[in-house]
Amino acid sequence: MSEILVVGSLAYDSVQTPWGKVERALGGSANYFSLASSLYSRVRVVGVVGEDYEAKDFDLLKSRNVDVSGMTVQKGKTFHWSGSYEGDMNEAITHATDLNVFEKFDPVLPEHYRDSKFVFLANISPDLQLKVLEQVKAPLFVGMDTMNFWISSKIDDLKKVLGKVDVVLINEGEAMMLTGAHNAIEAAAKVCAMGPKALVIKRGEYGFVLYTPKEGFFILPAFPVDKVTDPTGAGDTFAGGFFGHLASLGRKPEVADLKMACVQGTLLASFTIQDFSVKALAKVTLADIEERFHRMKKVVSFL
Amino acid sequence: MSEILVVGSLAYDSVQTPWGKVERALGGSANYFSLASSLYSRVRVVGVVGEDYEAKDFDLLKSRNVDVSGMTVQKGKTFHWSGSYEGDMNEAITHATDLNVFEKFDPVLPEHYRDSKFVFLANISPDLQLKVLEQVKAPLFVGMDTMNFWISSKIDDLKKVLGKVDVVLINEGEAMMLTGAHNAIEAAAKVCAMGPKALVIKRGEYGFVLYTPKEGFFILPAFPVDKVTDPTGAGDTFAGGFFGHLASLGRKPEVADLKMACVQGTLLASFTIQDFSVKALAKVTLADIEERFHRMKKVVSFL
Repeated sequence: MSEILVVGSLAYDSVQTPWGKVERALGGSANYFSLASSLYSRVRVVGVVGEDYEAKDFDLLKSRNVDVSGMTVQKGKTFHWSGSYEGDMNEAITHATDLNVFEKFDPVLPEHYRDSKFVFLANISPDLQLKVLEQVKAPLFVGMDTMNFWISSKIDDLKKVLGKVDVVLINEGEAMMLTGAHNAIEAAAKVCAMGPKALVIKRGEYGFVLYTPKEGFFILPAFPVDKVTDPTGAGDTFAGGFFGHLASLGRKPEVADLKMACVQGTLLASFTIQDFSVKALAKVTLADIEERFHRMKKVVSFL
Repeated sequence: MSEILVVGSLAYDSVQTPWGKVERALGGSANYFSLASSLYSRVRVVGVVGEDYEAKDFDLLKSRNVDVSGMTVQKGKTFHWSGSYEGDMNEAITHATDLNVFEKFDPVLPEHYRDSKFVFLANISPDLQLKVLEQVKAPLFVGMDTMNFWISSKIDDLKKVLGKVDVVLINEGEAMMLTGAHNAIEAAAKVCAMGPKALVIKRGEYGFVLYTPKEGFFILPAFPVDKVTDPTGAGDTFAGGFFGHLASLGRKPEVADLKMACVQGTLLASFTIQDFSVKALAKVTLADIEERFHRMKKVVSFL
């Protein structure tokens, strides 16, 4: 087993969906990612929180053996996002983004983080993604996420990061925006032409597309869930399950490993969306995932 | 092998997409369905055309051994639909719907059609769907399509049809509108509670969902196509491949048969969208489908 380094946001989210709402509930890409990946591997987090960040939220990660020594507490408040989901549960409507201490985030890795073999650069500014990557000595496998905001505002830095990673995990709209393609299938080869050896397009309730120039497409629907309580964090949970599985193998991933990693990611995300915040994810066990794994095989089997 | 009866529209379509346009090209649900299903089985069409309907368009169906004796020519013009696809290739923008002779369509089955064992009621008014069904003596397996317009304007008749069919093939928005569900998964059991023993939700580029109360979900993505030239007719092609496969087995379908029928439908639709009108569909062979079948297995296999 190898250790995973993740850099991303640590946040409090206020979210409303047709099924209820939560105020200042635990969120942020690094939290979802860490809770998911720590089911499989050891995880190290780099991020920043404010003085209002609660001890119990540190404790939750510690209870999963997540190394939080790279989480710094800064004067001020923790990043706060407020949003809602209405008719279309695939798309959040942002009400407010209070960056707070996250605005001046300057990631510095603790010395013992620098030998991490698996690195995930969650959705933060591409110049900070580069800064983190420069501090890692000899990574074996690096992945990144990004968002529309960085594609339109920092495309040059973003292209530098794309040139240094093994896999990109983004959603469908981002893949099309980045490449000018008309659909996920057309976008795939174009993203990989920018550097990455593999691309994962996250499609929400429609599952995912994995593409490698070497072996082409691997596409599956999401695990069927009839009540989506809160889709927040599904993509970061996917990335966590994906990296957790790969790091647990402790080797340079093969395409077959990436496929299984996608399946783990999509299964884990199917739990996250069944409750608000990290509530469902914090309770999932490997046995729960195994159970859905067998059901998933049945859902997509036709021979 | 059993014979399939299909009732639906026979039309000329004027379509514009980012990849070009066609004027008054052959279209209509019954044409797409017949071309698809006739690859597997004998097909009988019921429909109406105007005096402008061209001999070559009759000949195309005849060349596939499709029985066109139930196609009547009425004084006036053939149904004409005009539309375009812009950013979102999953949704057509309708510019004009000229019903013409289709407005007074009164389906009467030729005597020798009445023993048909497989019946597909494409998207026409539910009272006409009922009228067709009443003329069939002892159908073995009946399927239907519908659309938002009938759900909002003729829900009582529509519910009568739903109570008489074995399978419904509709798109995701229609399934949610019909049931008030928030997603396709939630909608599935609710549609089947209205009568049908099986539901197929067509998801365009995201594939399909098959649900049976007996065995639950079978879900696959669409076969990956990087250039969607014209998605018109994809749903009717799916239905044609689906029914064609089932009728070729010539028995009351089991759930495993429905799964394979969905795969055939999705593969055939992947050809239809690669050219305008019925151009690609008219050229597809069973060998072409077989080739994509093997590639599709690889696209969704992870063990």
